Amino acid sequence: MTAAVTSSDNARPAGAPEDFDFNSYLAARKSEVEAALDAALGPERPESLREAMRYSLLAGGKRLRPILCLAACELAGGDPALAMPTAVALEMIHTMSLIHDDLPAMDNDDLRRGRPTNHKVYGEAVAILAGDALLTRAFEMVALRSPGVPAERLIKVVAELSLVAGAPGLVGGQVVDLESEGKDVDLETLEYIHLHKTGALLKACVITGALIAGADATRIASLGTYARGIGLAFQIVDDILDVTASSDVLGKTAGKDLIADKTTYPKLLGLEESRARARALVEEAKASLSLFKGDGGGLAKAAPLLALADYVIGRDR
Amino acid sequence: MTAAVTSSDNARPAGAPEDFDFNSYLAARKSEVEAALDAALGPERPESLREAMRYSLLAGGKRLRPILCLAACELAGGDPALAMPTAVALEMIHTMSLIHDDLPAMDNDDLRRGRPTNHKVYGEAVAILAGDALLTRAFEMVALRSPGVPAERLIKVVAELSLVAGAPGLVGGQVVDLESEGKDVDLETLEYIHLHKTGALLKACVITGALIAGADATRIASLGTYARGIGLAFQIVDDILDVTASSDVLGKTAGKDLIADKTTYPKLLGLEESRARARALVEEAKASLSLFKGDGGGLAKAAPLLALADYVIGRDR
Repeated sequence: MTAAVTSSDNARPAGAPEDFDFNSYLAARKSEVEAALDAALGPERPESLREAMRYSLLAGGKRLRPILCLAACELAGGDPALAMPTAVALEMIHTMSLIHDDLPAMDNDDLRRGRPTNHKVYGEAVAILAGDALLTRAFEMVALRSPGVPAERLIKVVAELSLVAGAPGLVGGQVVDLESEGKDVDLETLEYIHLHKTGALLKACVITGALIAGADATRIASLGTYARGIGLAFQIVDDILDVTASSDVLGKTAGKDLIADKTTYPKLLGLEESRARARALVEEAKASLSLFKGDGGGLAKAAPLLALADYVIGRDR
Repeated sequence: MTAAVTSSDNARPAGAPEDFDFNSYLAARKSEVEAALDAALGPERPESLREAMRYSLLAGGKRLRPILCLAACELAGGDPALAMPTAVALEMIHTMSLIHDDLPAMDNDDLRRGRPTNHKVYGEAVAILAGDALLTRAFEMVALRSPGVPAERLIKVVAELSLVAGAPGLVGGQVVDLESEGKDVDLETLEYIHLHKTGALLKACVITGALIAGADATRIASLGTYARGIGLAFQIVDDILDVTASSDVLGKTAGKDLIADKTTYPKLLGLEESRARARALVEEAKASLSLFKGDGGGLAKAAPLLALADYVIGRDR
């Protein structure tokens, strides 16, 4: 593992119970999520569409977003099983944005997670449509395939997903990102791009998980603060990895953002200052969960989210 | 007006009250819909995205889909004002599918409604993203901007929209359409394409309108039958117009479907047989509304939907 930013104890965060094993937790959750993703795609006609959707949705990855959703639901006192359709929806939205971002008209990427990008395999038309279909399937997962959750909660989840996937979220971030290429971009614009392209979706993961659990506004706000911190830290680490890692590790063309003359944190702040900022953001994120101490059991239930925060800056993607 | 199929009395359908003036009804509803569409797009950043979304959403057209939704809501006993956000959502989904279908990777159309297509004006990247943003904004309209409608109804509307916009609807139809180009396609495949690309959305218009009104399953099914009939008739008329009208009237390249070697109804059935089939479908559609006679006032409240059925085969697009 190529750690971009070192973290004190990746397997057991401070405040977590001694018997909490983060690696087992991650593996178990990931396996549940993979099964749910696999089951979420029906018999779409025609076959090329179904294959294109499956190709990108089941392409591996850490499944960080769905796991954040399930963990937030559990921390807020809900049954994570009820949040699984929403967790799947979040991964579908994430996958859809990757497929569209990789298109020739956008970032023109040939590789993603070590494999040819969707449009390289299925052609541009089907790649665009597979993205469209995954986006709408995400809403279907919440509205039609979330048994046992009251409609009042589901409609709030739909609202949150609609904001994060569209102009106020992923799409807005991508447009500003494209328009910034080859330009000198200041820190404010860089953070705008990352908050919209990465941070907003991570935030939606924990907020929708909490909504499924029926959490109150205070707890949702505290989870929002947590997500904002790990979202920015996540992006800083991404930028650091782009500079330091090789194409083999990343499964995509390393240094591409620099080649395309994109502004990155290391370029703006330097490597050391970027690492320090990521570390500070993660500590802030973890601190924002202290609110849940009063919910019984101390911070034991927060162990997964505390560990996930550390994980974000220690990951190899 | 170039009528593709003549209809007995376009201004007042059989069974409608004598004081029902369809042209005034259409004009009034269209003007309400235009105002709602104009108000539905917020201050998206950056400006290029907002402009691209507005360019296509406010490009005119008959606004048949939102009007069908409002009329169905009213027929089912609801307040059409409560259905307006859903009506706007339907037009956003329709617009989004036009933007993506026109892309170079798909139908590669330069003109739409007499104006350059979205990607010709804003470039492919922004056109793809404007489509994505309109699709997600549609869900936002229902989930976040539909005050006064119970969450139980809204979540059913979201479910309906997610099905019609995705693989089981528009996307599936478009994929089969693209894969059929240059091939000999039978009537079954042709109807599959049209039911998914055109019919499904028209059906969703009346069904979501009825859902907002809280209609029961029987009434929703009867409106579904109505929509299936006018949906197929609509497409047959579209095919007839492609053969008989000039580019000037259509605002898009006439005969393009024939040039691209697409299967059409006139090609399969001949012009006269196509016209007869459209007429029969519209009569069946109108008959399916007889269920509402028992709701009081005879079929007076059905006047708009009865007239809209005739309108579909008499329109010049």
